[in-house]
Amino acid sequence: MPTTIDSTEPLAPIEAPPGLEGVIAARTRVGDVRGREGFYHYGPYDAVALNRQRSLEDVWHLMLLGHLPSTTEQAEFARRIAPLQVLPSELIPELHRIAGLAPFDALAALRTSLSWWAQRRQLRSWIDTPRSQVFQDLLAITAITPTLMAALFRMSKGLEPVQPRTGWSTAKNYLWMMNAVEPEDRHVWAIERYLISTIDHGFNSSTFTARVITSTGADVGAAVVGAIGALSGPLHGGAPSRALDMLDAIGSPERAEPWIRDAVANGDRIMGFGHRVYKGEDPRSTLLRDVAHELGGSLVEFAATVEETIIRVLAELKPGRELNTNVEFYAGVVMETCGVPRGMFTPTFACSRVIGWAAHILEQVDDNRLIRPSSRYVGESAPQPIPALM
Amino acid sequence: MPTTIDSTEPLAPIEAPPGLEGVIAARTRVGDVRGREGFYHYGPYDAVALNRQRSLEDVWHLMLLGHLPSTTEQAEFARRIAPLQVLPSELIPELHRIAGLAPFDALAALRTSLSWWAQRRQLRSWIDTPRSQVFQDLLAITAITPTLMAALFRMSKGLEPVQPRTGWSTAKNYLWMMNAVEPEDRHVWAIERYLISTIDHGFNSSTFTARVITSTGADVGAAVVGAIGALSGPLHGGAPSRALDMLDAIGSPERAEPWIRDAVANGDRIMGFGHRVYKGEDPRSTLLRDVAHELGGSLVEFAATVEETIIRVLAELKPGRELNTNVEFYAGVVMETCGVPRGMFTPTFACSRVIGWAAHILEQVDDNRLIRPSSRYVGESAPQPIPALM
Repeated sequence: MPTTIDSTEPLAPIEAPPGLEGVIAARTRVGDVRGREGFYHYGPYDAVALNRQRSLEDVWHLMLLGHLPSTTEQAEFARRIAPLQVLPSELIPELHRIAGLAPFDALAALRTSLSWWAQRRQLRSWIDTPRSQVFQDLLAITAITPTLMAALFRMSKGLEPVQPRTGWSTAKNYLWMMNAVEPEDRHVWAIERYLISTIDHGFNSSTFTARVITSTGADVGAAVVGAIGALSGPLHGGAPSRALDMLDAIGSPERAEPWIRDAVANGDRIMGFGHRVYKGEDPRSTLLRDVAHELGGSLVEFAATVEETIIRVLAELKPGRELNTNVEFYAGVVMETCGVPRGMFTPTFACSRVIGWAAHILEQVDDNRLIRPSSRYVGESAPQPIPALM
Repeated sequence: MPTTIDSTEPLAPIEAPPGLEGVIAARTRVGDVRGREGFYHYGPYDAVALNRQRSLEDVWHLMLLGHLPSTTEQAEFARRIAPLQVLPSELIPELHRIAGLAPFDALAALRTSLSWWAQRRQLRSWIDTPRSQVFQDLLAITAITPTLMAALFRMSKGLEPVQPRTGWSTAKNYLWMMNAVEPEDRHVWAIERYLISTIDHGFNSSTFTARVITSTGADVGAAVVGAIGALSGPLHGGAPSRALDMLDAIGSPERAEPWIRDAVANGDRIMGFGHRVYKGEDPRSTLLRDVAHELGGSLVEFAATVEETIIRVLAELKPGRELNTNVEFYAGVVMETCGVPRGMFTPTFACSRVIGWAAHILEQVDDNRLIRPSSRYVGESAPQPIPALM
């Protein structure tokens, strides 16, 4: 009859592998990864094919509304998101204070800002909110995130934020709002490919966090704030600038081979290579390598040389282990080439992944059940007598 | 060799019950619920027996350090937490702005404030932080939470915050910081019992959220901010004032019987009764009923009459269903009698549960593995051809 304010032990415990690996925690229509087949998909569409043919806004529409837009729907969607991308002027003093906390930690600043923004929007439990309003709130969160992130970045450097321009794409506005310079078309094109490629990727920890928080009936802002926290962990989304740092450490093409031989001899980690599941190459790497080569430039040429050297040397020193570049390697190269500073790599990832979170939150809202696994007590047997105070 | 910035599909999926019910997601020494035996425990100690014999600070010490303190350790612990409970003056203008967002939503305000506080404290991934510092950060979070919550409450009413007093217990200071009146000893005693009773209770959704976020390597502030979000959901911690609202609706003892008969006839929910797992009575209810009777007063007498009537009428109308009061019922009665306003019931719950979260976060840090379950794709089969734009 009633719900309870807290919950309890399982009746029939199920032993799960550590980290819940392989445990099906949700059914989803958002997408999936088919690693052995070498692809991942958004809805029913190959995510790379979609990326080559459609805009960020089209994929965003697919994620939140379940289908790709027609030209009419494209116009309608653009009309809906434009006002939601504008930085609310009342928020500007607050963001200045949040961004002013030194040293600047972009994801922590985004977490605090979005929590503030959600509170200011008076988000309430989705259980007490009409579905159409929950959708509108999620659309607003996905629209405001790149704006907040870019504003915080500028403010952390003592600069004033700039507003998005009407009629510009989200990707173009993102670069514009960070740098206050009209971005080159090829950079807009490249960063848009990066953003699309990272919207969703199976049931990762931040997506799962968003669904667990949503499952309690919490407001959708609380779910996104929690997901940003999960993404800030280096085991999830925390350090895609490492591959670039490695390129810096190598310094020049001719130093690639001795550097990698030293690294392997010392047992150092080589950043940007290998992936837990994809059998062949991570399809996001293939895509972003193509994007990088399309962009061109000295960094791309250098990265290609290093990549070729690392794969050749690892094949010699670690035979039988097929190693490929993962999404980190060329993601970093593309972002650096487009003028995104390294401290903004993971925050930029958050700006696209928030669309995936929103799709999963909406799915949880539409078919909810409290997510509440169990634990196994492994301490001293209970109950023990309470010791006298000594 | 490398970690990746994102993760992927399972190799051998395991079907789990909805909501991961009964799935063992962690091993823990923090505590457990043994519902069929009618008790729950903190470490190896019966949580109710512990509550009757020890202070909040003693149990807090047990949760974070793994053992009950000696008298020497009590003094040492008090010395450590006292400065951490003081409201940092630099935070006061910020809290005024957060609390000033109308209408006041206490848990959303706590979420934003703690996110700000964590950012200001420059918390970083626990992976890059010495264990002793992680412990100190968690001690600081558990110490500052009641202070922040009470300050936000006062500020939401346009009042200035008051600082905790040296030498007073955390429970006494909590009531003091909310009301700026020295609380009666019996109220301090009663609210301390409530706080101890809600520190931990099996592997609930907010505790799980804290562990998932921690598992990514995120800073411990991000984990607590996420857990506050989960607790704000009404299916978890969101509405313990409902039982009091029901008492208001009933109005007087003689109206209890017709009211409950009407409610059952209309299929309305009766708040504060029944629990998913405890076979007999929720041991927290037994404890808090005793605490309420010790406090006495007209509300307690009225509540006891209503309780007796509801149980009698339900036994008649729904025979065979053994229904008992759950923790909501007398928790509300105790808090109301101690002068905690209804809007602060769940926030007060957060002030004690944060100790349980901290214990679980520390345990996750000490034996970490990324928590990352899987999902099952149930959409249209992929890959479909990308439709032409129309």
